[in-house]
Amino acid sequence: MNIAEIITIGDELLIGQTVDTNSAWIGMQLSMRGIRVNRITSISDRREEIITALDEALGRVPLVLVTGGLGPTSDDVTKQTLAEYFGSSLVIDREVLAEVTERLARRNLEMNENNRRQALVPDNCVVLANRAGTAPGMLFEKEGRIIISMPGVPSEMKYIMQEHVLPLVAARAGGRTIIHRNIMTYGTFEAKLAERLQVFEAELPATVKLAYLPAYGVIKLRLTGTGDDGVAVHRTVEEQVRKLYSVIPDVIYGEDEVTLEEVAGKLLLDNNLTVSTAESCTGGRIASLITSVPGSSSWFRGSVVAYDNIIKTGVLGVDPAVISRFGAVSEETARAMAEGVRRLTATDYAIAVTGIAGPTGGTPEKPVGTVWIAIASPAGIIAEKHRFADDRAINISRSAYTALNLLRKQIINR
Amino acid sequence: MNIAEIITIGDELLIGQTVDTNSAWIGMQLSMRGIRVNRITSISDRREEIITALDEALGRVPLVLVTGGLGPTSDDVTKQTLAEYFGSSLVIDREVLAEVTERLARRNLEMNENNRRQALVPDNCVVLANRAGTAPGMLFEKEGRIIISMPGVPSEMKYIMQEHVLPLVAARAGGRTIIHRNIMTYGTFEAKLAERLQVFEAELPATVKLAYLPAYGVIKLRLTGTGDDGVAVHRTVEEQVRKLYSVIPDVIYGEDEVTLEEVAGKLLLDNNLTVSTAESCTGGRIASLITSVPGSSSWFRGSVVAYDNIIKTGVLGVDPAVISRFGAVSEETARAMAEGVRRLTATDYAIAVTGIAGPTGGTPEKPVGTVWIAIASPAGIIAEKHRFADDRAINISRSAYTALNLLRKQIINR
Repeated sequence: MNIAEIITIGDELLIGQTVDTNSAWIGMQLSMRGIRVNRITSISDRREEIITALDEALGRVPLVLVTGGLGPTSDDVTKQTLAEYFGSSLVIDREVLAEVTERLARRNLEMNENNRRQALVPDNCVVLANRAGTAPGMLFEKEGRIIISMPGVPSEMKYIMQEHVLPLVAARAGGRTIIHRNIMTYGTFEAKLAERLQVFEAELPATVKLAYLPAYGVIKLRLTGTGDDGVAVHRTVEEQVRKLYSVIPDVIYGEDEVTLEEVAGKLLLDNNLTVSTAESCTGGRIASLITSVPGSSSWFRGSVVAYDNIIKTGVLGVDPAVISRFGAVSEETARAMAEGVRRLTATDYAIAVTGIAGPTGGTPEKPVGTVWIAIASPAGIIAEKHRFADDRAINISRSAYTALNLLRKQIINR
Repeated sequence: MNIAEIITIGDELLIGQTVDTNSAWIGMQLSMRGIRVNRITSISDRREEIITALDEALGRVPLVLVTGGLGPTSDDVTKQTLAEYFGSSLVIDREVLAEVTERLARRNLEMNENNRRQALVPDNCVVLANRAGTAPGMLFEKEGRIIISMPGVPSEMKYIMQEHVLPLVAARAGGRTIIHRNIMTYGTFEAKLAERLQVFEAELPATVKLAYLPAYGVIKLRLTGTGDDGVAVHRTVEEQVRKLYSVIPDVIYGEDEVTLEEVAGKLLLDNNLTVSTAESCTGGRIASLITSVPGSSSWFRGSVVAYDNIIKTGVLGVDPAVISRFGAVSEETARAMAEGVRRLTATDYAIAVTGIAGPTGGTPEKPVGTVWIAIASPAGIIAEKHRFADDRAINISRSAYTALNLLRKQIINR
């Protein structure tokens, strides 16, 4: 059972009201356990579509994971269709009913008809308890093939996967090893990176594959090794990872799914350092990224979002003459903002960003996308000018990550 | 040509390294133009998989949109496979080559072999120019059916869709009308909403469907009307929208894909009001949401992220005695923070949030998820206590949206 498919059910996926994040999560979990996902299919919540998709998937692979269509509301037909497909009838499951009752009681709610329907399950399935919600998962076996149906709410699907499905599939998976390693890079772009890695790619052993996965300025390099000898696969992939570090040391900031805010946070924590931010065009995004990391109160003191120049002068203490002479988007203002917030918060490091996010506010000399980033530290202040894009969302995001990357480099090279 | 399918290509989708956001965007665009998406299929970038998926999709629908596998790096095989599938050979397209050369020149880059390969196109396709990147789109016709292949980078796919594909499909789409209306709600949960809408649902006309689409505390209610008479479909859906407003007026905050930060921003702008924030557990998230809206410099002055108590007292002017007596997470501290930032930034409204995001920091009296939200305005200060979840990311996100929703209500009822 080394190959599986995923079926996600819901009109909302087809008309684009909801992005299917469940498939990616399931795909990653399965692939980390050596199970290859052959295909992901999204279909509407209509009986005929569900039956056709199940038939097709079961014709290709021995394991099919289904999400969606089990919610408490009446747009969901999956459960009835599954009961029909496996020739069973719906019965009340006492345990699920007790669980639903208890969950509602904790929230001081009465049981309604929608809740009660959630306790109905096909009589020939294995019920997979869902302590993250009210709709249980269901496992069916048919001619040696396994179909597992889960709710579409991500937290509930994840609970059922982690508690029930992943232990099961890991136990049934055979000997073939697939290893993924992700090397995270920032500060370059795909074609440039591909050029730098041309020789590396040409010299890759046949059992190792390289993929480029760009997203928001970060380019993930994924090395995938495959083989029957687990130890050998591990060793081969590890050699290639080390080689990557020697070819492009300047752009690698970490491994696996690590983010720049996590890497910067760990560096600050390990070195017992603190940071603050003074943000104009990023509007608090950098502070929000830093504090998304658990434990960040150990290295983060606070920020001043100085959108209006009054805050730059009044709170951060930037000299009004600096702003009127050089402009709010200038090296001088960025430096003064960094200095100001570092003093105000008494931190070791301070990040300051000032720029023109757009869509308006650009001039011929300072077009939309012009951003100054400064880092103040005990060693002094450094500043960099960047020109990002014409798009507001991209400018905010690139400014924030570029600032975090600059902080990271400053700490490493201090 | 009222029905289509989407095929997304890339191992990164199957192993969960990348979430497929392209399909949702394409699905929404098509569905707004009355074209139903029958199925979304994600497959690996292997020749056989691509050919099988194309065969299957073309057997079901007359229009197939393909994304992915056209990038400059060598893990992409889509173009070669398409050329083979349609019995053509790859030739250099002069226009694409000129475009690639020009784009590189603007960035002061030399053309490399990867870039040059992007100008290769099958000789029997219509080239769809891509001014957002270097890989062009390609349109093939086969026995009256259309296959369009686009790069997987979202900005490039969107450019090609908007410039070439959507005008084409709109022109070919026939008379059937599908209308979607989204009513956005906040401050309730799905089973509760379903109970309140039980009668409404039972009374819906047969041509109108209701779906519940929850995400991060927001529940989108989607009404879909279908029929041959466009005017009649419009009228029927409009009647049901009005009815929804009369049944659940307290939880509706807007329509279509509008966000709470956009609604709050528009209210501030229309009433010539300003806002600032003082954030502890949300760490700048509220400021970041507010400033994600273009034009927000008209209504947003700035924020103080007071993670450390030193910032609460030193910058916001919260009385240290208040913090030591009631705690940093208390009604009194939240009120003092709101008052402090309102004074500091001279805004009409000020939002303050202080809470325990987790995973650590909880106590029996104030468990993780305890959050105080205060709004200061010319009318005085109000404060609300909430208990959200055990999860840090959920607590930050719910705190931020609940605060924006409270601001919205305060402005409406002022």
